[in-house]
Amino acid sequence: MSAIKVYGSMLSPAVMRVMACLNEKELKFQFVEVNMGAGEHKKEPFISLNPFGLVPAFEDGDLKLFESRAITRYIANQYEEKGTNLVINGKGKQMASFVLCMEVEAHQFDPPASKLAFELVIKAYLGMTTDETVVEESKVQFAKVLDVYEARLSESKYLAGDEFTLVDLHHFPNLHYLMSSPIKKMFESRPHFLAWCTAILARPSSVKVLEMQKAN
Amino acid sequence: MSAIKVYGSMLSPAVMRVMACLNEKELKFQFVEVNMGAGEHKKEPFISLNPFGLVPAFEDGDLKLFESRAITRYIANQYEEKGTNLVINGKGKQMASFVLCMEVEAHQFDPPASKLAFELVIKAYLGMTTDETVVEESKVQFAKVLDVYEARLSESKYLAGDEFTLVDLHHFPNLHYLMSSPIKKMFESRPHFLAWCTAILARPSSVKVLEMQKAN
Ligand SMILES: N[C@@H](CCC(=O)N[C@@H](CS)C(=O)NCC(=O)O)C(=O)O
Ligand SMILES: N[C@@H](CCC(=O)N[C@@H](CS)C(=O)NCC(=O)O)C(=O)O
Repeated sequence: MSAIKVYGSMLSPAVMRVMACLNEKELKFQFVEVNMGAGEHKKEPFISLNPFGLVPAFEDGDLKLFESRAITRYIANQYEEKGTNLVINGKGKQMASFVLCMEVEAHQFDPPASKLAFELVIKAYLGMTTDETVVEESKVQFAKVLDVYEARLSESKYLAGDEFTLVDLHHFPNLHYLMSSPIKKMFESRPHFLAWCTAILARPSSVKVLEMQKAN
Repeated sequence: MSAIKVYGSMLSPAVMRVMACLNEKELKFQFVEVNMGAGEHKKEPFISLNPFGLVPAFEDGDLKLFESRAITRYIANQYEEKGTNLVINGKGKQMASFVLCMEVEAHQFDPPASKLAFELVIKAYLGMTTDETVVEESKVQFAKVLDVYEARLSESKYLAGDEFTLVDLHHFPNLHYLMSSPIKKMFESRPHFLAWCTAILARPSSVKVLEMQKAN
Protein backbone atom coordinates (compact mmCIF):
# COMPACT_ATOMS: atom_id res chain seq x y z
CA MET A 1 0.00 0.00 0.00
CA SER A 2 1.32 3.35 -1.03
CA ALA A 3 1.62 6.34 1.31
CA ILE A 4 0.26 8.52 -1.51
CA LYS A 5 -3.47 8.33 -2.12
CA VAL A 6 -5.59 10.13 -4.72
CA TYR A 7 -9.34 10.26 -4.08
CA GLY A 8 -11.81 10.97 -6.85
CA SER A 9 -13.12 9.85 -10.22
CA MET A 10 -10.60 9.04 -12.95
CA LEU A 11 -12.75 10.90 -15.50
CA SER A 12 -12.43 14.18 -13.59
CA PRO A 13 -10.05 16.62 -15.28
CA ALA A 14 -8.75 17.83 -11.91
CA VAL A 15 -8.01 14.24 -10.85
CA MET A 16 -6.30 13.47 -14.18
CA ARG A 17 -4.05 16.51 -13.64
CA VAL A 18 -2.80 15.10 -10.34
CA MET A 19 -2.32 11.59 -11.74
CA ALA A 20 -0.28 12.92 -14.67
CA CYS A 21 1.93 14.81 -12.23
CA LEU A 22 2.55 11.71 -10.12
CA ASN A 23 3.44 9.82 -13.31
CA GLU A 24 5.96 12.51 -14.36
CA LYS A 25 7.54 12.16 -10.93
CA GLU A 26 7.54 8.33 -11.18
CA LEU A 27 5.67 8.12 -7.88
CA LYS A 28 3.45 5.17 -7.04
CA PHE A 29 0.03 5.94 -5.61
CA GLN A 30 -3.17 4.30 -4.53
CA PHE A 31 -6.33 5.47 -6.29
CA VAL A 32 -9.45 5.60 -4.11
CA GLU A 33 -12.70 5.77 -6.09
CA VAL A 34 -15.28 8.30 -4.87
CA ASN A 35 -18.76 7.50 -6.16
CA MET A 36 -19.77 10.95 -7.33
CA GLY A 37 -23.04 9.69 -8.83
CA ALA A 38 -24.03 8.69 -5.29
CA GLY A 39 -22.87 12.09 -3.97
CA GLU A 40 -20.10 10.59 -1.84
CA HIS A 41 -17.98 13.72 -2.41
CA LYS A 42 -20.53 15.82 -0.52
CA LYS A 43 -20.56 13.63 2.63
CA GLU A 44 -18.26 12.29 5.29
CA PRO A 45 -15.70 10.80 5.16
CA PHE A 46 -14.80 12.71 1.97
CA ILE A 47 -15.58 16.21 3.20
CA SER A 48 -13.05 15.76 5.99
CA LEU A 49 -10.50 15.51 3.18
CA ASN A 50 -11.92 18.44 1.21
CA PRO A 51 -14.46 20.66 2.99
CA PHE A 52 -15.51 22.11 -0.39
CA GLY A 53 -16.72 18.67 -1.52
CA LEU A 54 -14.78 18.57 -4.78
CA VAL A 55 -12.45 15.93 -6.18
CA PRO A 56 -9.53 15.32 -6.03
CA ALA A 57 -8.42 14.95 -2.46
CA PHE A 58 -4.92 13.74 -1.71
CA GLU A 59 -2.89 12.19 1.08
CA ASP A 60 0.83 11.72 1.45
CA GLY A 61 1.29 9.90 4.75
CA ASP A 62 -0.47 12.11 7.28
CA LEU A 63 -0.45 15.18 5.04
CA LYS A 64 -3.83 16.02 3.49
CA LEU A 65 -4.38 18.30 0.51
CA PHE A 66 -6.96 19.26 -2.09
CA GLU A 67 -7.17 21.64 -5.11
CA SER A 68 -5.49 19.92 -8.07
CA ARG A 69 -2.95 22.69 -8.71
CA ALA A 70 -1.95 22.81 -5.04
CA ILE A 71 -1.40 19.05 -5.10
CA THR A 72 0.75 19.18 -8.25
CA ARG A 73 2.77 22.08 -6.85
CA TYR A 74 3.30 20.17 -3.59
CA ILE A 75 4.41 17.04 -5.48
CA ALA A 76 6.76 19.03 -7.73
CA ASN A 77 8.42 20.74 -4.74
CA GLN A 78 8.40 17.83 -2.31
CA TYR A 79 9.80 15.32 -4.83
CA GLU A 80 12.01 17.80 -6.67
CA GLU A 81 14.79 15.28 -7.34
CA LYS A 82 12.49 12.53 -8.69
CA GLY A 83 11.44 12.13 -12.35
CA THR A 84 10.96 15.24 -14.51
CA ASN A 85 11.77 18.65 -13.01
CA LEU A 86 8.48 20.53 -13.24
CA VAL A 87 9.05 23.90 -11.58
CA ILE A 88 11.15 26.99 -12.22
CA ASN A 89 12.12 28.53 -8.90
CA GLY A 90 14.60 31.28 -8.07
CA LYS A 91 14.68 34.69 -9.73
CA GLY A 92 14.68 36.23 -13.18
CA LYS A 93 12.82 35.99 -16.44
CA GLN A 94 12.29 32.25 -16.53
CA MET A 95 10.68 32.27 -13.10
CA ALA A 96 8.54 35.24 -14.19
CA SER A 97 7.45 33.39 -17.30
CA PHE A 98 6.60 30.31 -15.22
CA VAL A 99 4.47 32.17 -12.66
CA LEU A 100 2.70 34.10 -15.42
CA CYS A 101 1.78 31.00 -17.41
CA MET A 102 0.55 29.23 -14.26
CA GLU A 103 -1.96 32.04 -13.69
CA VAL A 104 -2.95 32.31 -17.34
CA GLU A 105 -3.86 28.62 -17.38
CA ALA A 106 -5.95 28.95 -14.22
CA HIS A 107 -7.67 32.26 -14.98
CA GLN A 108 -7.87 32.52 -18.79
CA PHE A 109 -7.53 29.07 -20.35
CA ASP A 110 -9.31 26.84 -17.85
CA PRO A 111 -12.68 28.63 -17.59
CA PRO A 112 -13.72 28.37 -21.26
CA ALA A 113 -11.84 25.07 -21.79
CA SER A 114 -13.58 23.40 -18.84
CA LYS A 115 -16.97 24.66 -19.95
CA LEU A 116 -16.44 23.34 -23.48
CA ALA A 117 -15.12 19.97 -22.27
CA PHE A 118 -18.13 19.64 -19.95
CA GLU A 119 -20.72 20.68 -22.55
CA LEU A 120 -19.27 18.80 -25.52
CA VAL A 121 -17.72 15.67 -24.04
CA ILE A 122 -18.61 14.98 -20.42
CA LYS A 123 -22.33 15.76 -20.79
CA ALA A 124 -22.58 13.38 -23.76
CA TYR A 125 -20.92 10.71 -21.65
CA LEU A 126 -23.40 11.32 -18.81
CA GLY A 127 -26.37 11.38 -21.19
CA MET A 128 -27.06 15.08 -20.57
CA THR A 129 -28.01 17.70 -23.19
CA THR A 130 -25.43 20.21 -24.43
CA ASP A 131 -26.29 23.87 -23.83
CA GLU A 132 -25.54 25.47 -27.21
CA THR A 133 -25.58 29.02 -25.82
CA VAL A 134 -22.81 28.17 -23.36
CA VAL A 135 -20.87 26.48 -26.18
CA GLU A 136 -21.12 29.49 -28.48
CA GLU A 137 -20.13 32.00 -25.79
CA SER A 138 -17.24 29.85 -24.59
CA LYS A 139 -15.98 29.35 -28.15
CA VAL A 140 -15.71 33.09 -28.69
CA GLN A 141 -13.78 33.51 -25.43
CA PHE A 142 -11.64 30.42 -26.11
CA ALA A 143 -10.67 31.57 -29.62
CA LYS A 144 -9.05 34.68 -28.12
CA VAL A 145 -7.15 32.59 -25.60
CA LEU A 146 -5.95 30.24 -28.36
CA ASP A 147 -4.66 33.19 -30.38
CA VAL A 148 -2.57 34.34 -27.42
CA TYR A 149 -1.25 30.79 -26.95
CA GLU A 150 -0.45 30.45 -30.66
CA ALA A 151 1.67 33.61 -30.53
CA ARG A 152 3.46 32.46 -27.37
CA LEU A 153 4.09 28.94 -28.68
CA SER A 154 5.61 30.30 -31.88
CA GLU A 155 8.41 31.61 -29.65
CA SER A 156 9.14 28.59 -27.45
CA LYS A 157 8.33 24.88 -27.54
CA TYR A 158 6.55 24.95 -24.18
CA LEU A 159 4.66 27.74 -22.45
CA ALA A 160 7.25 28.79 -19.90
CA GLY A 161 10.24 28.21 -22.20
CA ASP A 162 11.97 25.29 -23.90
CA GLU A 163 11.30 22.75 -21.16
CA PHE A 164 8.06 21.00 -20.24
CA THR A 165 6.83 22.16 -16.81
CA LEU A 166 3.82 22.02 -14.55
CA VAL A 167 2.31 24.83 -16.62
CA ASP A 168 2.01 22.58 -19.66
CA LEU A 169 0.94 19.59 -17.60
CA HIS A 170 -1.97 21.51 -16.09
CA HIS A 171 -3.54 21.73 -19.56
CA PHE A 172 -3.45 18.00 -20.29
CA PRO A 173 -6.97 16.96 -19.17
CA ASN A 174 -8.82 19.69 -21.07
CA LEU A 175 -6.64 19.19 -24.15
CA HIS A 176 -7.41 15.48 -24.07
CA TYR A 177 -11.18 15.95 -23.86
CA LEU A 178 -11.32 18.79 -26.39
CA MET A 179 -9.33 16.80 -28.98
CA SER A 180 -12.26 14.37 -29.09
CA SER A 181 -14.73 17.23 -29.75
CA PRO A 182 -15.40 19.69 -32.60
CA ILE A 183 -13.01 22.09 -30.81
CA LYS A 184 -10.20 20.03 -32.37
CA LYS A 185 -10.70 22.17 -35.50
CA MET A 186 -9.83 25.30 -33.51
CA PHE A 187 -6.56 23.62 -32.52
CA GLU A 188 -5.78 22.43 -36.05
CA SER A 189 -5.99 25.93 -37.46
CA ARG A 190 -3.22 27.00 -35.06
CA PRO A 191 -0.10 24.98 -35.94
CA HIS A 192 2.09 25.87 -32.95
CA PHE A 193 -0.76 25.19 -30.57
CA LEU A 194 -1.47 21.86 -32.25
CA ALA A 195 2.19 20.76 -32.07
CA TRP A 196 2.31 21.66 -28.38
CA CYS A 197 -0.97 19.87 -27.67
CA THR A 198 0.23 16.78 -29.53
CA ALA A 199 3.48 16.77 -27.55
CA ILE A 200 1.62 16.96 -24.24
CA LEU A 201 -0.82 14.19 -25.12
CA ALA A 202 2.02 11.94 -26.31
CA ARG A 203 3.92 12.10 -23.02
CA PRO A 204 4.13 8.75 -21.21
CA SER A 205 2.63 10.47 -18.14
CA SER A 206 -0.52 11.36 -20.12
CA VAL A 207 -0.77 8.03 -21.93
CA LYS A 208 -0.57 6.24 -18.59
CA VAL A 209 -3.48 8.26 -17.14
CA LEU A 210 -5.66 7.32 -20.12
CA GLU A 211 -4.67 3.65 -19.77
CA MET A 212 -5.56 3.74 -16.07
CA GLN A 213 -8.95 5.29 -16.94
CA LYS A 214 -9.68 2.43 -19.35
CA ALA A 215 -8.59 -0.25 -16.89
CA ASN A 216 -10.67 1.33 -14.09
CA MET B 1 11.28 57.51 -12.45
CA SER B 2 11.02 54.00 -11.11
CA ALA B 3 11.88 50.89 -13.11
CA ILE B 4 8.73 49.29 -11.70
CA LYS B 5 5.46 50.37 -13.31
CA VAL B 6 1.90 49.31 -12.50
CA TYR B 7 -0.73 49.99 -15.16
CA GLY B 8 -4.42 50.10 -14.31
CA SER B 9 -7.11 51.72 -12.22
CA MET B 10 -6.48 52.12 -8.49
CA LEU B 11 -10.04 51.00 -7.75
CA SER B 12 -9.47 47.60 -9.37
CA PRO B 13 -9.09 44.80 -6.79
CA ALA B 14 -6.44 43.08 -8.92
CA VAL B 15 -4.43 46.31 -9.12
CA MET B 16 -4.78 46.90 -5.37
CA ARG B 17 -3.38 43.40 -4.75
CA VAL B 18 -0.22 44.24 -6.66
CA MET B 19 0.18 47.64 -4.99
CA ALA B 20 -0.15 46.10 -1.51
CA CYS B 21 2.54 43.57 -2.40
CA LEU B 22 4.93 46.28 -3.58
CA ASN B 23 4.26 48.14 -0.31
CA GLU B 24 5.06 45.04 1.78
CA LYS B 25 8.32 44.76 -0.12
CA GLU B 26 9.06 48.49 0.36
CA LEU B 27 9.51 48.89 -3.39
CA LYS B 28 8.89 52.20 -5.12
CA PHE B 29 6.82 52.14 -8.29
CA GLN B 30 5.27 54.38 -10.86
CA PHE B 31 1.50 54.11 -11.29
CA VAL B 32 0.23 54.55 -14.85
CA GLU B 33 -3.49 55.27 -15.07
CA VAL B 34 -5.43 53.33 -17.71
CA ASN B 35 -8.73 54.99 -18.56
CA MET B 36 -10.99 51.96 -18.43
CA GLY B 37 -14.12 54.06 -18.94
CA ALA B 38 -12.70 55.00 -22.35
CA GLY B 39 -11.82 51.34 -23.03
CA GLU B 40 -8.07 51.99 -23.09
CA HIS B 41 -7.43 48.51 -21.66
CA LYS B 42 -8.85 46.91 -24.80
CA LYS B 43 -6.61 48.85 -27.23
CA GLU B 44 -2.97 49.42 -28.05
CA PRO B 45 -0.67 50.27 -26.37
CA PHE B 46 -2.21 48.44 -23.38
CA ILE B 47 -2.93 45.12 -25.10
CA SER B 48 0.75 44.78 -25.92
CA LEU B 49 1.23 44.65 -22.15
CA ASN B 50 -1.68 42.27 -21.56
CA PRO B 51 -3.19 40.56 -24.62
CA PHE B 52 -6.26 39.66 -22.54
CA GLY B 53 -7.07 43.35 -22.05
CA LEU B 54 -7.35 43.22 -18.24
CA VAL B 55 -5.69 45.37 -15.60
CA PRO B 56 -3.17 45.27 -14.01
CA ALA B 57 -0.18 45.12 -16.30
CA PHE B 58 3.30 45.43 -14.86
CA GLU B 59 6.84 46.26 -15.89
CA ASP B 60 10.12 45.84 -14.06
CA GLY B 61 12.74 47.25 -16.38
CA ASP B 62 12.29 45.32 -19.62
CA LEU B 63 10.34 42.51 -17.98
CA LYS B 64 6.59 42.59 -18.67
CA LEU B 65 3.93 40.72 -16.70
CA PHE B 66 0.20 40.57 -16.08
CA GLU B 67 -2.22 38.53 -13.90
CA SER B 68 -2.16 40.02 -10.40
CA ARG B 69 -1.15 36.79 -8.64
CA ALA B 70 1.69 36.18 -11.10
CA ILE B 71 2.95 39.71 -10.47
CA THR B 72 2.85 39.31 -6.66
CA ARG B 73 4.57 35.94 -6.89
CA TYR B 74 7.27 37.43 -9.12
CA ILE B 75 7.81 40.35 -6.72
CA ALA B 76 7.93 38.03 -3.69
CA ASN B 77 10.54 35.78 -5.33
CA GLN B 78 12.57 38.43 -7.12
CA TYR B 79 12.84 40.74 -4.09
CA GLU B 80 12.99 37.94 -1.52
CA GLU B 81 15.40 39.81 0.79
CA LYS B 82 13.43 43.09 0.80
CA GLY B 83 10.62 43.98 3.25
CA THR B 84 8.31 41.23 4.54
CA ASN B 85 9.01 37.65 3.51
CA LEU B 86 5.84 36.59 1.69
CA VAL B 87 6.45 33.07 0.41
CA ILE B 88 7.05 29.63 1.89
CA ASN B 89 9.32 27.68 -0.40
CA GLY B 90 11.14 24.39 0.13
CA LYS B 91 9.49 21.17 1.29
CA GLY B 92 7.17 19.91 4.01
CA LYS B 93 3.91 20.82 5.67
CA GLN B 94 4.28 24.59 5.70
CA MET B 95 4.95 24.68 1.96
CA ALA B 96 1.95 22.36 1.44
CA SER B 97 -0.25 24.64 3.50
CA PHE B 98 0.97 27.67 1.55
CA VAL B 99 0.31 26.18 -1.89
CA LEU B 100 -3.10 24.92 -0.76
CA CYS B 101 -4.24 28.29 0.57
CA MET B 102 -3.05 30.05 -2.58
CA GLU B 103 -5.34 27.86 -4.67
CA VAL B 104 -8.26 28.09 -2.24
CA GLU B 105 -8.14 31.88 -2.46
CA ALA B 106 -8.09 31.82 -6.27
CA HIS B 107 -10.65 29.05 -6.85
CA GLN B 108 -13.02 29.13 -3.85
CA PHE B 109 -12.83 32.52 -2.13
CA ASP B 110 -12.32 34.90 -5.02
CA PRO B 111 -15.25 33.92 -7.29
CA PRO B 112 -18.09 34.68 -4.83
CA ALA B 113 -16.14 37.49 -3.09
CA SER B 114 -15.46 39.30 -6.37
CA LYS B 115 -19.06 38.94 -7.47
CA LEU B 116 -20.34 40.36 -4.18
CA ALA B 117 -17.83 43.22 -4.19
CA PHE B 118 -18.83 44.07 -7.75
CA GLU B 119 -22.58 43.86 -7.17
CA LEU B 120 -22.68 45.57 -3.78
CA VAL B 121 -19.90 48.14 -3.90
CA ILE B 122 -18.39 48.75 -7.31
CA LYS B 123 -21.72 48.87 -9.17
CA ALA B 124 -23.06 51.46 -6.70
CA TYR B 125 -19.93 53.50 -7.31
CA LEU B 126 -20.43 53.29 -11.08
CA GLY B 127 -24.16 54.07 -10.81
CA MET B 128 -25.19 50.61 -11.97
CA THR B 129 -28.03 48.47 -10.54
CA THR B 130 -27.27 45.53 -8.24
CA ASP B 131 -28.45 42.13 -9.49
CA GLU B 132 -30.14 40.66 -6.41
CA THR B 133 -30.21 37.12 -7.84
CA VAL B 134 -26.42 37.12 -8.22
CA VAL B 135 -26.09 38.53 -4.70
CA GLU B 136 -28.28 35.82 -3.16
CA GLU B 137 -26.55 32.96 -4.99
CA SER B 138 -23.10 34.30 -4.19
CA LYS B 139 -23.99 34.75 -0.51
CA VAL B 140 -24.95 31.09 -0.18
CA GLN B 141 -21.68 30.02 -1.79
CA PHE B 142 -19.66 32.57 0.20
CA ALA B 143 -21.14 31.48 3.55
CA LYS B 144 -19.72 27.98 3.00
CA VAL B 145 -16.32 29.40 2.15
CA LEU B 146 -16.39 31.60 5.27
CA ASP B 147 -17.17 28.58 7.44
CA VAL B 148 -14.11 26.77 6.11
CA TYR B 149 -11.99 29.88 6.72
CA GLU B 150 -13.38 30.29 10.26
CA ALA B 151 -12.33 26.72 11.12
CA ARG B 152 -8.89 27.20 9.62
CA LEU B 153 -8.30 30.57 11.30
CA SER B 154 -9.22 29.13 14.69
CA GLU B 155 -6.04 27.05 14.35
CA SER B 156 -3.53 29.65 13.18
CA LYS B 157 -3.36 33.43 13.06
CA TYR B 158 -2.89 33.55 9.29
CA LEU B 159 -4.05 31.16 6.59
CA ALA B 160 -0.80 29.34 5.87
CA GLY B 161 0.40 29.41 9.50
CA ASP B 162 1.48 31.96 12.08
CA GLU B 163 3.08 34.37 9.62
CA PHE B 164 1.42 36.75 7.18
CA THR B 165 2.14 35.64 3.59
CA LEU B 166 1.08 36.32 0.02
CA VAL B 167 -1.94 34.09 0.68
CA ASP B 168 -3.39 36.56 3.17
CA LEU B 169 -2.39 39.56 1.09
CA HIS B 170 -4.28 38.25 -1.95
CA HIS B 171 -7.54 38.67 0.01
CA PHE B 172 -7.00 42.30 0.92
CA PRO B 173 -8.93 44.05 -1.90
CA ASN B 174 -12.10 41.96 -1.58
CA LEU B 175 -11.99 42.17 2.23
CA HIS B 176 -11.71 45.94 1.98
CA TYR B 177 -14.67 46.33 -0.36
CA LEU B 178 -16.88 43.82 1.43
CA MET B 179 -16.30 45.46 4.83
CA SER B 180 -18.13 48.51 3.45
CA SER B 181 -21.11 46.36 2.39
CA PRO B 182 -23.83 44.32 4.19
CA ILE B 183 -21.47 41.32 3.88
CA LYS B 184 -19.66 42.78 6.90
CA LYS B 185 -22.31 41.04 9.04
CA MET B 186 -21.23 37.66 7.67
CA PHE B 187 -17.69 38.48 8.83
CA GLU B 188 -18.80 39.71 12.25
CA SER B 189 -20.57 36.46 13.05
CA ARG B 190 -17.27 34.59 12.55
CA PRO B 191 -14.82 35.91 15.19
CA HIS B 192 -11.58 34.32 13.91
CA PHE B 193 -12.35 35.46 10.40
CA LEU B 194 -13.09 38.97 11.61
CA ALA B 195 -9.85 39.18 13.60
CA TRP B 196 -7.87 38.03 10.57
CA CYS B 197 -9.68 40.46 8.26
CA THR B 198 -9.05 43.32 10.70
CA ALA B 199 -5.34 42.44 10.92
CA ILE B 200 -5.00 42.44 7.13
CA LEU B 201 -6.78 45.75 6.67
CA ALA B 202 -4.67 47.36 9.42
CA ARG B 203 -1.35 46.53 7.79
CA PRO B 204 0.60 49.60 6.64
CA SER B 205 0.76 48.07 3.15
CA SER B 206 -3.06 48.07 2.94
CA VAL B 207 -3.52 51.49 4.51
CA LYS B 208 -1.06 52.93 2.02
CA VAL B 209 -3.01 51.54 -0.97
CA LEU B 210 -6.20 53.18 0.31
CA GLU B 211 -4.38 56.48 0.85
CA MET B 212 -3.02 56.32 -2.69
CA GLN B 213 -6.55 55.66 -3.99
CA LYS B 214 -7.81 58.77 -2.23
CA ALA B 215 -4.96 60.93 -3.44
CA ASN B 216 -5.36 59.68 -7.03
N1 LIG C 1 -10.29 23.95 -8.41
C1 LIG C 1 -10.58 22.57 -8.11
C2 LIG C 1 -11.76 22.09 -8.92
C3 LIG C 1 -12.20 20.71 -8.54
C4 LIG C 1 -13.49 20.35 -9.25
O1 LIG C 1 -14.25 21.20 -9.71
N2 LIG C 1 -13.75 19.04 -9.32
C5 LIG C 1 -14.95 18.57 -9.98
C6 LIG C 1 -14.63 17.40 -10.87
S1 LIG C 1 -13.45 17.87 -12.14
C7 LIG C 1 -15.96 18.14 -8.92
O2 LIG C 1 -15.59 17.64 -7.86
N3 LIG C 1 -17.25 18.36 -9.20
C8 LIG C 1 -18.30 17.98 -8.31
C9 LIG C 1 -19.17 19.15 -7.93
O3 LIG C 1 -18.99 20.25 -8.47
O4 LIG C 1 -20.01 18.93 -7.05
C10 LIG C 1 -9.35 21.69 -8.41
O5 LIG C 1 -8.59 22.08 -9.29
O6 LIG C 1 -9.15 20.67 -7.73
N1 LIG D 1 -7.11 37.23 -13.11
C1 LIG D 1 -6.83 38.63 -13.44
C2 LIG D 1 -8.13 39.41 -13.39
C3 LIG D 1 -7.94 40.83 -13.84
C4 LIG D 1 -9.27 41.54 -13.97
O1 LIG D 1 -10.32 40.88 -14.09
N2 LIG D 1 -9.22 42.88 -13.97
C5 LIG D 1 -10.45 43.63 -14.06
C6 LIG D 1 -10.42 44.79 -13.06
S1 LIG D 1 -10.30 44.15 -11.38
C7 LIG D 1 -10.53 44.22 -15.48
O2 LIG D 1 -9.53 44.55 -16.10
N3 LIG D 1 -11.76 44.33 -15.99
C8 LIG D 1 -12.00 44.87 -17.29
C9 LIG D 1 -12.73 43.94 -18.18
O3 LIG D 1 -13.17 42.85 -17.72
O4 LIG D 1 -12.86 44.25 -19.36
C10 LIG D 1 -5.84 39.22 -12.43
O5 LIG D 1 -5.82 38.72 -11.29
O6 LIG D 1 -5.07 40.13 -12.78
